[in-house]
Amino acid sequence: MQNLTIGIDIGGTKVAGGLVTQKGRLIKAAIVPTRAKEGVKASFGQVRRLIERLIREAGGKRHILGIGLCCPGAIDPETRTMINAPNLPGWENLRIGDEIERSFGLPARVENDANAAGLAEVLFGAGAGYRHVFYVTVSTGIGTGIVIGRQVYHGARGVAGEGGHVSIDYKSPYRCSCGAFGCIEALAAGPAMARRARVRLEQEYEAPSLLRTMTKGRLRLINPKMIEEAAQRGDEIAQSIVNETGFYLGVWLAAMINLLDPEAVVIGGGVSQIGKPLFDKIRPAIQRYALNPAMAAKVPILPAKLRQNVGVYGAASLFSPGGEEAENSV
Amino acid sequence: MQNLTIGIDIGGTKVAGGLVTQKGRLIKAAIVPTRAKEGVKASFGQVRRLIERLIREAGGKRHILGIGLCCPGAIDPETRTMINAPNLPGWENLRIGDEIERSFGLPARVENDANAAGLAEVLFGAGAGYRHVFYVTVSTGIGTGIVIGRQVYHGARGVAGEGGHVSIDYKSPYRCSCGAFGCIEALAAGPAMARRARVRLEQEYEAPSLLRTMTKGRLRLINPKMIEEAAQRGDEIAQSIVNETGFYLGVWLAAMINLLDPEAVVIGGGVSQIGKPLFDKIRPAIQRYALNPAMAAKVPILPAKLRQNVGVYGAASLFSPGGEEAENSV
Repeated sequence: MQNLTIGIDIGGTKVAGGLVTQKGRLIKAAIVPTRAKEGVKASFGQVRRLIERLIREAGGKRHILGIGLCCPGAIDPETRTMINAPNLPGWENLRIGDEIERSFGLPARVENDANAAGLAEVLFGAGAGYRHVFYVTVSTGIGTGIVIGRQVYHGARGVAGEGGHVSIDYKSPYRCSCGAFGCIEALAAGPAMARRARVRLEQEYEAPSLLRTMTKGRLRLINPKMIEEAAQRGDEIAQSIVNETGFYLGVWLAAMINLLDPEAVVIGGGVSQIGKPLFDKIRPAIQRYALNPAMAAKVPILPAKLRQNVGVYGAASLFSPGGEEAENSV
Repeated sequence: MQNLTIGIDIGGTKVAGGLVTQKGRLIKAAIVPTRAKEGVKASFGQVRRLIERLIREAGGKRHILGIGLCCPGAIDPETRTMINAPNLPGWENLRIGDEIERSFGLPARVENDANAAGLAEVLFGAGAGYRHVFYVTVSTGIGTGIVIGRQVYHGARGVAGEGGHVSIDYKSPYRCSCGAFGCIEALAAGPAMARRARVRLEQEYEAPSLLRTMTKGRLRLINPKMIEEAAQRGDEIAQSIVNETGFYLGVWLAAMINLLDPEAVVIGGGVSQIGKPLFDKIRPAIQRYALNPAMAAKVPILPAKLRQNVGVYGAASLFSPGGEEAENSV
């Protein structure tokens, strides 16, 4: 074994890691709990031990090109500093790249998780063959990554690509976790879908719905998976929640296309796995809200390919030659 | 005279041209009517004659580095083709760069007007010293230009940067010229301000307002200049229209900052000349809707410097060394 990259995806609940080849094949994967609540020492210890284990599995450091790390939150990829991470208490202003490099004597790179996932999709996944891609992950939140010339676009201070916090309805009653109103994350992410379903069933208290029986009337238990299943089984309210989600995503993607003119859009994350019923509603909404519908129609809206372990692929892709390719044309 | 660039700004009503030095000094300016309604032959003839005249004024072709052209609409800067221009009938799929080069034997470059203006502000204006700038012009419409590493960001097909067509209110009753609803252009550009003022005065038919006396009750005559003046003179309805405009722009700019992470935002165009009363409302709205208010607070929101002739500067800046600087870091 040689020329492997260690990819580490640090989430609030678990840390996923793996060994990835230069061609984007995951040959070893492992998961440990983050122990986030026990503070930075405990959780960073988990990351360290996972890396140690992966180095052993690789047969030693000489087979490792580098260690890529990704996590949610604001990261400065240049200084490899975690500025803040909502789900990782104590990880503020942590120079994680330096720490890892010092501990293991291997080069380390750090990236926001959605940016890394976007890069991995472009290098190894649904975006392969494209150079300019707008990547979206719709799950608990909505993360985005702007890939230009097969590189992550970082902006002036490294915090670009927070497309989930673009409001398409500034008057919305739905407040986003960021404090603003009507962000696409507050309208179309998983918890937003569940909330909309619950509100709807509370308002239309006489309307029948599978979601009532699935939750035994405890509407707070509704989750996106239930909505997906109920919609598949023909439940009208669940279907309308899926349809609305597609519409919101389409309105928002039209804006992203008008602004960024990507070659392709790649959509991943748990909610995107609803698949056709969702994508079928996204495309017409893009057409309706795009400045140039004929041109927008030519932008492929692709489901992500790297589902399981996308974070590990993403972190590993930071050492891929494609991800490093120098680009003059912006 | 030497090393001059001819900058040509082709509008729906008039064509402005000028001779600009490499340092961004406009040493000669001229304006002719576009004669757009007479078709492409007549209007393109006007452009040609203006260029001829400027070459003469420069003392001959040997003093000219190149001819930069900008106009509103979709342009492919690579093939130097005007894809379409709403205000220039017949200019569809016109290879304007080739035409000009063939006619004059001088290199020609073509750019969308807002992109060109953004570049000029970065090279010669309010954005000088910054590398990553989001430029906005608020006048009859809202145009934007994304400047990354002192170069215009064009996207995959050359049509990036249409930030005016980002909807912040998808349910808005205000339909945009593009057909969508709630685009920032449909809420905050000059005609949108006038429309909001008119609707408000029609609804609150007993409310006194200077705008009634200024228009002698013919509310359709309200224009942004009147609103600016009435607001300055203390008119409450006019002030609230200005305040709303600032709020809308702030909500939208927060999204642009979240997504693009620019070093600075530069705002030009007629409406921006309202100045302090408008900017004072933009900044708090950015704070309210930004993902990271502390970081967003550090992004300067600057009034444009190149007011008169910004299009001529913009077109000329296409031949400026700064505009050509190769950049690896995106």
